[in-house]
Amino acid sequence: MLPDINVYKILEIIGTIAFASSGAMVAVKRRLDYLGIVVLGVTTAVGGGMCRDILIGQTPPGMFLDPTNTIIAFWTVNCMFLTIRMKWSQLLHLQGETYDNIMNFLDAVGLGLFTATGVNMAISAGFGNNGFLCAFLGVITGVGGGILRDILSGQTPVVLRKHIYACASIAGAVSYLLFMQAADHNLSMFLSSSIVVMIRLLARKYDWNLPGAQ
Amino acid sequence: MLPDINVYKILEIIGTIAFASSGAMVAVKRRLDYLGIVVLGVTTAVGGGMCRDILIGQTPPGMFLDPTNTIIAFWTVNCMFLTIRMKWSQLLHLQGETYDNIMNFLDAVGLGLFTATGVNMAISAGFGNNGFLCAFLGVITGVGGGILRDILSGQTPVVLRKHIYACASIAGAVSYLLFMQAADHNLSMFLSSSIVVMIRLLARKYDWNLPGAQ
Amino acid sequence: MLPDINVYKILEIIGTIAFASSGAMVAVKRRLDYLGIVVLGVTTAVGGGMCRDILIGQTPPGMFLDPTNTIIAFWTVNCMFLTIRMKWSQLLHLQGETYDNIMNFLDAVGLGLFTATGVNMAISAGFGNNGFLCAFLGVITGVGGGILRDILSGQTPVVLRKHIYACASIAGAVSYLLFMQAADHNLSMFLSSSIVVMIRLLARKYDWNLPGAQ
Repeated sequence: MLPDINVYKILEIIGTIAFASSGAMVAVKRRLDYLGIVVLGVTTAVGGGMCRDILIGQTPPGMFLDPTNTIIAFWTVNCMFLTIRMKWSQLLHLQGETYDNIMNFLDAVGLGLFTATGVNMAISAGFGNNGFLCAFLGVITGVGGGILRDILSGQTPVVLRKHIYACASIAGAVSYLLFMQAADHNLSMFLSSSIVVMIRLLARKYDWNLPGAQ
Repeated sequence: MLPDINVYKILEIIGTIAFASSGAMVAVKRRLDYLGIVVLGVTTAVGGGMCRDILIGQTPPGMFLDPTNTIIAFWTVNCMFLTIRMKWSQLLHLQGETYDNIMNFLDAVGLGLFTATGVNMAISAGFGNNGFLCAFLGVITGVGGGILRDILSGQTPVVLRKHIYACASIAGAVSYLLFMQAADHNLSMFLSSSIVVMIRLLARKYDWNLPGAQ
Repeated sequence: MLPDINVYKILEIIGTIAFASSGAMVAVKRRLDYLGIVVLGVTTAVGGGMCRDILIGQTPPGMFLDPTNTIIAFWTVNCMFLTIRMKWSQLLHLQGETYDNIMNFLDAVGLGLFTATGVNMAISAGFGNNGFLCAFLGVITGVGGGILRDILSGQTPVVLRKHIYACASIAGAVSYLLFMQAADHNLSMFLSSSIVVMIRLLARKYDWNLPGAQ
């Protein structure tokens, strides 16, 4: 038996939490204030979906019409803020490599589900016969938030530099489109997200990187 | 008696001038050429409204359909350019702290009025029942230009770092929405803008900053 | 005799190739990986048109509906990648100043044609009576890709800093609008593009720069 759609809702929430945390961590490292941390965290979590919605002309973007994810991201960032400020993470021994591994796994789950959700929304919006557009919208949903986070915090987007991050998203988007030819929505989402998670975990474990030109 | 709506038009022009000047000053400090100064100045003044219009799907953005503010920003930047190039500011003794204080006050007025205008436009566009969206559109109208200015000039947006700038805008947007429950447009705009100006002046005077996480 | 419209199609392809190459070169210099090179190259080539389409509400942007230019940009970047990786450019003696001169010329052609195309699309979309909007959309089509490239790679956009690049585009857009009063589309495109190319070549040869404020 495949998981029910509500399981995906829960997984998407997990992805939102992971993305919001990663944005908040970048803001903390750049010594931004409370509001900067909130903005970067929330942007990382919902920015990809916002880019997708603007590109297909669904305005105002979904993050305003159904702000569930926006609210989840907001509270996630606040918990992160408190945790770091109160130094609770030391009490929980959630530090260094353990913490990195947990975050990396959640982030991979988020990337996979956001990518599949993005492709799915593009199909729902009636662009199903334009595979290139659907795949692109899936990828931008997955990586757009991270790109906005990096632009706002003044660094070259990580997705352009490291660890086949966008590549995993591209693989997920394309495989979702392929699976949809033969399987239903649930199965496609499960399989394509699994592919993304697997690529990301392997890329981290074996330190895969794309070649540069020199 | 509350001021007539034409007073707000004048105040909005003052805000536009202040925003355009701040953009031009950043460009001058980064040693950009004449065109860079014009682009940064105009973007700072009208960029927030452009972001708002794209988010609610009012395309082309108002800055093109009614370019009054765009033109005012353009001539402001040209005056700044001439003033600095001709060193007239030294003749007028408009330097250092006096200049900073004047600019900070004008900028606060602009922030307050732009924020309230943004909320007002969101209500006019029919999003009055979505308070979160209205408040966000108000804030993006107020701070969006400054964020674009900082992204274009390659620095982490100041609003994420300093002096409760975005906070003042958020307070203004939320209070505008609250005042609108009980009062008319003019009174709400007056009160909410005053709140923004007051917060900004106090924040500067007493060097208020939001806490960071560490 | 003026060239047929198909000649312009070919020239636009040349412009796309030049823009994609310039984006790829920036990515190579910043040591981005293969995907970063592809993203920067393609963004530089089609990003200006994407900005224009979002601003006038033509969503999804043309780069997805008719991906010819996107595909050309993609293959251009791949050829660049191979050429640099295999060090073929040394075999062809396409290095240093010769290479720079060729790229600069192609880039000028691209800038001229993209600018005129942008103005033309704005007129087709029904904004012909708003000269300011048409000119702006032409300029953003011409320089928008380069601005996105520079924001993504974390530097102050070159167009704000150097060699009357945006100025040439502005001159092209305005002259296209003027020529359209008296001549047909083909002649206007030919003349305005020639003006852009001429300004760019002269600016490079005589090292023209706009004055700064100091």
